[in-house]
Amino acid sequence: MNPTRLEAFSDGVLAIIITIMVLELRPPHAAEWSALRPLWPVFLSYVLSFVNLGIYWNNHHHMLHVTRHIDGAILWANLHLLFWLSLVPFTTAWMGENHFAAVPTAVYGAVLLLAAVAYFVLQRTIIRSQGPHSVLAAAVGRDRKGKVSPVLYAAAIPSAFVDPRISGALYAIVALMWLLPDQRIERVVAARGAADHPAP
Amino acid sequence: MNPTRLEAFSDGVLAIIITIMVLELRPPHAAEWSALRPLWPVFLSYVLSFVNLGIYWNNHHHMLHVTRHIDGAILWANLHLLFWLSLVPFTTAWMGENHFAAVPTAVYGAVLLLAAVAYFVLQRTIIRSQGPHSVLAAAVGRDRKGKVSPVLYAAAIPSAFVDPRISGALYAIVALMWLLPDQRIERVVAARGAADHPAP
Amino acid sequence: MNPTRLEAFSDGVLAIIITIMVLELRPPHAAEWSALRPLWPVFLSYVLSFVNLGIYWNNHHHMLHVTRHIDGAILWANLHLLFWLSLVPFTTAWMGENHFAAVPTAVYGAVLLLAAVAYFVLQRTIIRSQGPHSVLAAAVGRDRKGKVSPVLYAAAIPSAFVDPRISGALYAIVALMWLLPDQRIERVVAARGAADHPAP
Amino acid sequence: MNPTRLEAFSDGVLAIIITIMVLELRPPHAAEWSALRPLWPVFLSYVLSFVNLGIYWNNHHHMLHVTRHIDGAILWANLHLLFWLSLVPFTTAWMGENHFAAVPTAVYGAVLLLAAVAYFVLQRTIIRSQGPHSVLAAAVGRDRKGKVSPVLYAAAIPSAFVDPRISGALYAIVALMWLLPDQRIERVVAARGAADHPAP
Repeated sequence: MNPTRLEAFSDGVLAIIITIMVLELRPPHAAEWSALRPLWPVFLSYVLSFVNLGIYWNNHHHMLHVTRHIDGAILWANLHLLFWLSLVPFTTAWMGENHFAAVPTAVYGAVLLLAAVAYFVLQRTIIRSQGPHSVLAAAVGRDRKGKVSPVLYAAAIPSAFVDPRISGALYAIVALMWLLPDQRIERVVAARGAADHPAP
Repeated sequence: MNPTRLEAFSDGVLAIIITIMVLELRPPHAAEWSALRPLWPVFLSYVLSFVNLGIYWNNHHHMLHVTRHIDGAILWANLHLLFWLSLVPFTTAWMGENHFAAVPTAVYGAVLLLAAVAYFVLQRTIIRSQGPHSVLAAAVGRDRKGKVSPVLYAAAIPSAFVDPRISGALYAIVALMWLLPDQRIERVVAARGAADHPAP
Repeated sequence: MNPTRLEAFSDGVLAIIITIMVLELRPPHAAEWSALRPLWPVFLSYVLSFVNLGIYWNNHHHMLHVTRHIDGAILWANLHLLFWLSLVPFTTAWMGENHFAAVPTAVYGAVLLLAAVAYFVLQRTIIRSQGPHSVLAAAVGRDRKGKVSPVLYAAAIPSAFVDPRISGALYAIVALMWLLPDQRIERVVAARGAADHPAP
Repeated sequence: MNPTRLEAFSDGVLAIIITIMVLELRPPHAAEWSALRPLWPVFLSYVLSFVNLGIYWNNHHHMLHVTRHIDGAILWANLHLLFWLSLVPFTTAWMGENHFAAVPTAVYGAVLLLAAVAYFVLQRTIIRSQGPHSVLAAAVGRDRKGKVSPVLYAAAIPSAFVDPRISGALYAIVALMWLLPDQRIERVVAARGAADHPAP
């Protein structure tokens, strides 16, 4: 079984998730500049979710690129990830429409946390099926980013009740961490990873 | 004619069906925990339908994987299956919004039953076109699950008028039956199937 | 340039068109059998459009299967077809919600007529680019169905003002004409076509 | 890394964007010809955006066709383009529902301008990664159209406050410029390009 159809289906679901989010950005009735102002929180949460889903698509793309064969466990771990990502339009809209109120902002983080855990489970499932010496196992290495992201999301959930801006900042930091090119970090991780787990 | 485009089109339709269901999960206006409580039945019916469509996608994937060529009958049997599956978002929303009332819960089962029958018809159509000694015919074997599922769905329809929770339990049992790894069952089926239908 | 991406894009658009139509089938508020009764015209128009789009997908599939290379004219003729098909959810919903009233039923036919013309233009564009001795030119032959369909659609438009049921019957006849297996018709067409246009 | 999955994902997003726009064309309640009249501005803006997205898909198709390998910068430049294009349904609906009022017409142009800039950035990113002697660098040449389009969009934004019809005409001119076959223009551009940048 080859990963092509899994990729195609995941691409389809991700493309739809990323696009239906924009349906929440409803055209205002008035035709004035001021009519756009109340849309800012909705727009901002759309941008945040677009970037997050873009990162997931990007990482998913790279992960499946080094996956040779697909079994039932991988199929279901992938659907599990897509399930949590499919809730992102809901939490994005709820957070945006309520101007980053505490509860919706915390729930937004909870769904991102569950998606990050689902991604981690999918990665483990693929590595288990491909073997510990596979390209993916080597490429993932110690997976600093993958481990830091859920920690920051978990911290963002209670922070929303202190000040939702802290949570917003944490969501932005995770996104930037994945967006910025990190050859230096990767080189360090690679070097340390090589020391910790000598190549076979 | 090769099955690639049939797969791609079916994947597209399934990905959209699975994703537009989440549009029914409308963000509440209030920004409080209590605002999420009335969404539970909608969320629960979404989870149930997501899993069911995931199972269909998974099985469809395996079935087309061993299909060598596509003819007009297969194309239409496939569209027939997609038609019934396309009604799942409607029945999911109706059942969820009415807190698993009797009639919507029965209609939900009726659409799943018709989809299961359509899947069976598609399977027969492919086997007929590929020949009785094809990989698919052997893989399907006696097809216990495929025969038990419609029976349980058919039982769930009248059960909804006794207590919709019985129907809900039956829908969950069918889903779990397909989800749980069943090497043991498959081995038994394979052994019995081998006794009943000696390999050519 | 190969036709794979044109197929993939058209499949995506067709899959979305076919699926968003079901969004018009809104779950009723009441949880009773009687609540489904007012949905019948919407459901019936959905079935009709699902079958029509299925036929387009099917024919499009076969046509591109024998297309070797794609040029700019084909790309735009294909987008032209997708444009008219993208209006089908609108006309389907308008006709269904108005219980097959005269004007929406006529407009439904007008969009199908324009789609049929666009399909014919696409077919001519492909044949022109592939050459008169191409597989497509031979397969199309005299193209009885392709010529009869627009005539019936054109007849259905004024008929809606006499009795919309006449238009409905004409739409159903065109759909059945494409659905029913027609080896006999095709053989006749092939024989006559061979007499009229001797093979090179 | 090959461009196939990037194409597939972009196709998915573009297909969805192009199709959800039609959801704004809501079926009127009345079943009369006159009920269609208020839909004209919505329909007209739909046609304009359909053609624009068709042009983007077409050009994107050609650009990726001559792209050999994909890196992280290209992935993100592509997502950046898709982000601005994903806002087209919003601006299309706002402009259409407000009968081409000044502000929405200007915002429509602003999003098209940002999409055109994003396309230019994506093109530069691909050329940088493929090398100055790549097929894409040669095919793009001096890229007259690609440079004129953003200028016309930028002109259309202030023009909307003089008369939105000027902006509408400018949007139509850009679309026609890309739609009309321009072998003659391309030949001139090619000749001048050859004089300016002698081939290696």
